Amino acid sequence: MARITSIEPGFYRIPLPEVLTDSMHGEMRAFELNTVRLRDADGAEGVGYTFTVGRNGAAIDAVLTREFPEIMAGEEADHIERLWQKAWWATHYGGRGGPTVLALSAFDMALWDLKSKRAGLPLWNYLGGFDPKVPCYAGGIDLDLPLDKLLKQTDGNLAKGFRAIKMKVGRKRLSEDVARVKAMREHLGEGFPLMVDANMKWTVDEAIRAARAFQPYDLTWVEEPTIPDDPAGHARIVREGGLPIAVGENLRTHWEFKQYIAMGAVTYPEPDVTNCGGVTPFMKIAHLAEAFNMPVTTHGAHDVTVHLLAACPNRSFLEAHGFGLERYIAEPLAIEEGFALAPDRPGHGIDFDWAGLERIKA
Amino acid sequence: MARITSIEPGFYRIPLPEVLTDSMHGEMRAFELNTVRLRDADGAEGVGYTFTVGRNGAAIDAVLTREFPEIMAGEEADHIERLWQKAWWATHYGGRGGPTVLALSAFDMALWDLKSKRAGLPLWNYLGGFDPKVPCYAGGIDLDLPLDKLLKQTDGNLAKGFRAIKMKVGRKRLSEDVARVKAMREHLGEGFPLMVDANMKWTVDEAIRAARAFQPYDLTWVEEPTIPDDPAGHARIVREGGLPIAVGENLRTHWEFKQYIAMGAVTYPEPDVTNCGGVTPFMKIAHLAEAFNMPVTTHGAHDVTVHLLAACPNRSFLEAHGFGLERYIAEPLAIEEGFALAPDRPGHGIDFDWAGLERIKA
Repeated sequence: MARITSIEPGFYRIPLPEVLTDSMHGEMRAFELNTVRLRDADGAEGVGYTFTVGRNGAAIDAVLTREFPEIMAGEEADHIERLWQKAWWATHYGGRGGPTVLALSAFDMALWDLKSKRAGLPLWNYLGGFDPKVPCYAGGIDLDLPLDKLLKQTDGNLAKGFRAIKMKVGRKRLSEDVARVKAMREHLGEGFPLMVDANMKWTVDEAIRAARAFQPYDLTWVEEPTIPDDPAGHARIVREGGLPIAVGENLRTHWEFKQYIAMGAVTYPEPDVTNCGGVTPFMKIAHLAEAFNMPVTTHGAHDVTVHLLAACPNRSFLEAHGFGLERYIAEPLAIEEGFALAPDRPGHGIDFDWAGLERIKA
Repeated sequence: MARITSIEPGFYRIPLPEVLTDSMHGEMRAFELNTVRLRDADGAEGVGYTFTVGRNGAAIDAVLTREFPEIMAGEEADHIERLWQKAWWATHYGGRGGPTVLALSAFDMALWDLKSKRAGLPLWNYLGGFDPKVPCYAGGIDLDLPLDKLLKQTDGNLAKGFRAIKMKVGRKRLSEDVARVKAMREHLGEGFPLMVDANMKWTVDEAIRAARAFQPYDLTWVEEPTIPDDPAGHARIVREGGLPIAVGENLRTHWEFKQYIAMGAVTYPEPDVTNCGGVTPFMKIAHLAEAFNMPVTTHGAHDVTVHLLAACPNRSFLEAHGFGLERYIAEPLAIEEGFALAPDRPGHGIDFDWAGLERIKA
């Protein structure tokens, strides 16, 4: 047990090697990275982070710089459940959702890193320990890639060791999506796990129609068919579309996931540890899914999330998707024959290149 | 039609004359005020604002300072629906909910102020026009007031012209709440509209038990019986508690309200124009309630909200609750015999004392 003695936020802008597009976020030129470094009275350090696709990093930084030091001053770093509640309620009125929860996610991640480091255990082991070898897929942001480039990107992913791949859908006409999915299925062969991601593009009825049109191509799941604000609509898509549905990268907290899970509005809950509120709610969501006899998958931050899935018996695929962050990490996640391996270093084991990050300060 | 030429955010801290407490927010010593002043190419000005009970104003300011000028540069001020969508999606990934929506609320309010001013109409008239005379209640933050002070505060509110009153509940023991409600009912007499507000304090079953215990005292509604993250729980409270339920000060956007309204989880939807996303979603929520045969009430910002209820046929009570802001407004809302009157000045008609605000910059 040791009190928090310092909270040091960082705010960086990581330019993307090329402009990315999906169906709803438009063009993405840079990702924002917000970090938190905690130190306790014994000098131990915990690190957490969150990211955005280009906006609101400044608001996250404001929460971490202006609110958290006051809220957390002198608190016991080990009492994570209590600190999570304290932060939630202290910022609730002007905060429920949005950048506040991204800030809380980074802070909570740092607390768990610190706690498991102090115990001398890798996070996946500290959290319970299931299997450090986690099946994993390559998530591409490739909606606007011409088909030949999409297939070439796919070959690159196969060469990198991926044995499951997700592609974007949500082009102007459904027939284009269907043709691209068909081409990918033919390219990858029968049985190869293939997912599609619509990034909230469709109405509920459009999503049902799309899911039915994709039926011949044996998709593992259709991701984010419509806006995250419509659990009842998702329940219809699950029931009437006939394909498994993944949703969660834009859902916050165990409470929002509970709605989806309890009403049968999702097949693969997909929390993102950097925006669902941190490790604390992520594990609750994973266990809630288990209690409802559902797998759990993930979005973003694969280097930390690999630990969380490695702790869960109901884990399905880990999304591997770097956005340039790997250039600022000492030992980025390795993929071998379709699996990611949770590192055996204490904590989450991510060692940031702080000097390098200093050069891309936002 | 004229383009937006400047967006000027302001961030202030308004100390409260005395420390306020409710069941979940703890002690409130100051409210934060975030303002937006828009100017268009013709030199017309629109003003919007939002507030917090003490935290996250800095994050709201970051969104208004850092994101909105870029997102809105050169846009047509009149195209409010389009600008709302643009802001929503531009900030969606790192933003859905929380401070982003409070910032958007202030910005959207400024757009409607500008638009109705340009038309030379008071906002309530511009939005459709129903009845400028709006029934109104005094909302007290009085959970910790001893009973004699609560009754004295009540007499003060009666003297100010209020003919409906809301008190806080959620004390340690339900029996204390019941005794205070009973005393208030006896003090006010039969038929006087009395509401109670639990500020999310209870579990669902506790709320049902409380609603049943309050049955003899003819309450107009029980407000925020539990956390805003549980629409299914609210639906049970409505059905099993047997009292009307008001909820909404912590709900964001027409999508969140739709869940509550469509599943029968609320009796009085209660949007706050400064945090539901602005005038645009507020009016959609009010109309959605009308379509579901429900009244609409409000939270906060009574000087603007009076216009919105004055435009709605299904309007019920306006909450009047100043937090010191009236000291910085030229003509604060007047209450007469239980009614607030929407001003006849163009726009929302609020004239801020900018020089005075400058002295309390955050």
